[in-house]
Amino acid sequence: MTENIEIDGSNLVQRIQDLAKIGALEGGGCCRLALTQEDKEGRDQVVSWMKELNLEITIDEIGNVIGKREGLEDLEPVIMGSHIDTVRSGGPYDGCLGVLAGLEVIATLDRQNIQTKRPVMVGFFTNEEGARFAPDMMGSMARQGHIPLQDVINVVGIDGSRVAEDLKRIGYQGKTPCEPIKAHAYLELHVEQGPVLEREGFEVGAVEAVQGISWTEINIKGVSNHAGTTPMSTRNDAGYAAAAICAFARKLTEEMAPDQLATVGRMEFSPNLVNVIPDVVCMTLDLRNINEEKLKKAEQRTFEFIKGLEQSEGVTIKTKTLARFEPVAFDRAMVSLVEEEALKLGAKVKRMPSGAGHDAQSFAPTCPTAMIFVPSVDGISHNIHEYTQPEDLIRGANVLLNVIRIKAME
Amino acid sequence: MTENIEIDGSNLVQRIQDLAKIGALEGGGCCRLALTQEDKEGRDQVVSWMKELNLEITIDEIGNVIGKREGLEDLEPVIMGSHIDTVRSGGPYDGCLGVLAGLEVIATLDRQNIQTKRPVMVGFFTNEEGARFAPDMMGSMARQGHIPLQDVINVVGIDGSRVAEDLKRIGYQGKTPCEPIKAHAYLELHVEQGPVLEREGFEVGAVEAVQGISWTEINIKGVSNHAGTTPMSTRNDAGYAAAAICAFARKLTEEMAPDQLATVGRMEFSPNLVNVIPDVVCMTLDLRNINEEKLKKAEQRTFEFIKGLEQSEGVTIKTKTLARFEPVAFDRAMVSLVEEEALKLGAKVKRMPSGAGHDAQSFAPTCPTAMIFVPSVDGISHNIHEYTQPEDLIRGANVLLNVIRIKAME
Repeated sequence: MTENIEIDGSNLVQRIQDLAKIGALEGGGCCRLALTQEDKEGRDQVVSWMKELNLEITIDEIGNVIGKREGLEDLEPVIMGSHIDTVRSGGPYDGCLGVLAGLEVIATLDRQNIQTKRPVMVGFFTNEEGARFAPDMMGSMARQGHIPLQDVINVVGIDGSRVAEDLKRIGYQGKTPCEPIKAHAYLELHVEQGPVLEREGFEVGAVEAVQGISWTEINIKGVSNHAGTTPMSTRNDAGYAAAAICAFARKLTEEMAPDQLATVGRMEFSPNLVNVIPDVVCMTLDLRNINEEKLKKAEQRTFEFIKGLEQSEGVTIKTKTLARFEPVAFDRAMVSLVEEEALKLGAKVKRMPSGAGHDAQSFAPTCPTAMIFVPSVDGISHNIHEYTQPEDLIRGANVLLNVIRIKAME
Repeated sequence: MTENIEIDGSNLVQRIQDLAKIGALEGGGCCRLALTQEDKEGRDQVVSWMKELNLEITIDEIGNVIGKREGLEDLEPVIMGSHIDTVRSGGPYDGCLGVLAGLEVIATLDRQNIQTKRPVMVGFFTNEEGARFAPDMMGSMARQGHIPLQDVINVVGIDGSRVAEDLKRIGYQGKTPCEPIKAHAYLELHVEQGPVLEREGFEVGAVEAVQGISWTEINIKGVSNHAGTTPMSTRNDAGYAAAAICAFARKLTEEMAPDQLATVGRMEFSPNLVNVIPDVVCMTLDLRNINEEKLKKAEQRTFEFIKGLEQSEGVTIKTKTLARFEPVAFDRAMVSLVEEEALKLGAKVKRMPSGAGHDAQSFAPTCPTAMIFVPSVDGISHNIHEYTQPEDLIRGANVLLNVIRIKAME
């Protein structure tokens, strides 16, 4: 079993391009927000490819789709997975690479007539992005038992839609119970979505851990009033309070540099008129750190700042946790195996943390898990200009193939 | 002609309540944004009242409506005016008081069989608020020759509507040419919309001047990217830049206290998602000062800050002037007359500047002009909780009556 085999690189690139046509945006990139019509069409496309590979397909109660290639023995499977939903202005690689490379791994095993001891699965998980429904990684988290199915089924999205209804509408509310998959290994190939590999001249990342993530929705209530007649000293300006939180978050990252990240991604003013002091602002704060203690400290300092701001600006501020994930460490042996197999292919490999959350972290507590990163040009992702060189895509898929092959034979 | 006459206070209060039913909001207040269906219905109501008073009604090319009561001689008229459009979450008094009190002044002259030497006019001017179309005071500014008709006719509003089409649609694109009215005097009664009169225990404000106003739309272009994988040091965050401008504006008001005002009323993030660094933000900055030199300094310091921010955050920032009015001084003799007549009625009078812009400033360069303020409870305006005590409304209307009566006899 040590003969060298390789995936069909042009097939992989072609499938990525084909999937990106669904929900394609003018100027490049695509929009397949979770559980929309575009997501449905993307799902239908991947399912048809799974059928071409004769995989046994299951759809579970939260809409995760898993294709299974039988093994010689009735053992716990090895799983490859990721997601095919995108943010509103997403690229073709984020998530899709891991799913479509998984298909190519199975196609390669077929082509080479390799029967594995264990079943090999490839899946895509519902709403990894969290761009329409919070929390993100919804499908894999619910499936692996980290959040109750009933909670996520009832989530209402930013456009007022409900997960349960949208699952039904697009025909992906399956019957397979949302019970944790017991796996021998989980491995996810993904674009880095950051600039580190490219900047430092590496070709493959062996991902050791995922940053902790804290998403908070912040609702500020002040007093709407006339912009020209209200003395500065008597204002209760929800808009200024929002700006102060945003500026504070940046200051916090400078004090806790370089590992603390902070992003204010959403901001909505009401009544949103040039000459009216805003009385209501809804905003979000995304805090990330590789260290749980530091992440907690960043959260705590933010809440202290908010408390002070309520006093100084005379506003009321309510916060709501949209998502909270502790940093996740991956399996040491799996990470080493990824590193070794990448080195065998002649790649320059860097052990590194992941800045983004991934479905892999839903599996990490329940089975040996790791991730493979490939470089993102200019570190750009969640952007229509997201790009990864074909040779990097193919190299990553071959690392995936070789590690999965080893794990499936154990 | 020195016998005491008074307006019918209950009529005035009733008309204010009746007009406020058009576009009424749940919980109080009203929304009659300029040139919407609600504005049309409000206009129709006031026009029907003008007809009941047998006024000669003219509608000009920008939709200003003026009702005229003939005088004994063919002399320049005296004018009372204000507006009946509101902000999105407006109150019943802002603007409407001046128009409806004007109707009561004419009704009182009729009831008392008083023939004035000069014609007496009462008008409402299109889009004083500027909440849907910029600039504000559009109608009176165009009529009095401060901005070309063609410019304002072609303005596109925040919802994509065009002034010319909306004027036609609601039936208020009149035939009277937009040529400056030559008047003997212009007098506008208005709620203060600020807390000064109430806080200092005055009942009437004799308005000496209007603050200068500078409205700027600020468009920031950064780079959209992943909130988890983009190191803080490599971000070009349009959202942070917007917050920094908002925080700077507040700091500026503290340094230039108490006369410098600054308000960020509009703020729109794109793509507006929790885990994506915003690449585009559109915001507005409203700067006001009673002193033109200081207002210029505030503008200049803001632009310098923006220039520095472009460098430090690596974003591109474009600014566009939405409105710019220099501070306006009212006619000394008219202001004194307002003060005297208020004192004769036993009112506590304060000479004061206006924090807000008003149609009166369109008339100030062309004829003797002044304004009468009455207190706003808690200083609240541009808010559904805007309120002025009936006795204050009526007292202000009687000052208006007495000054207009004097000017109309000159």
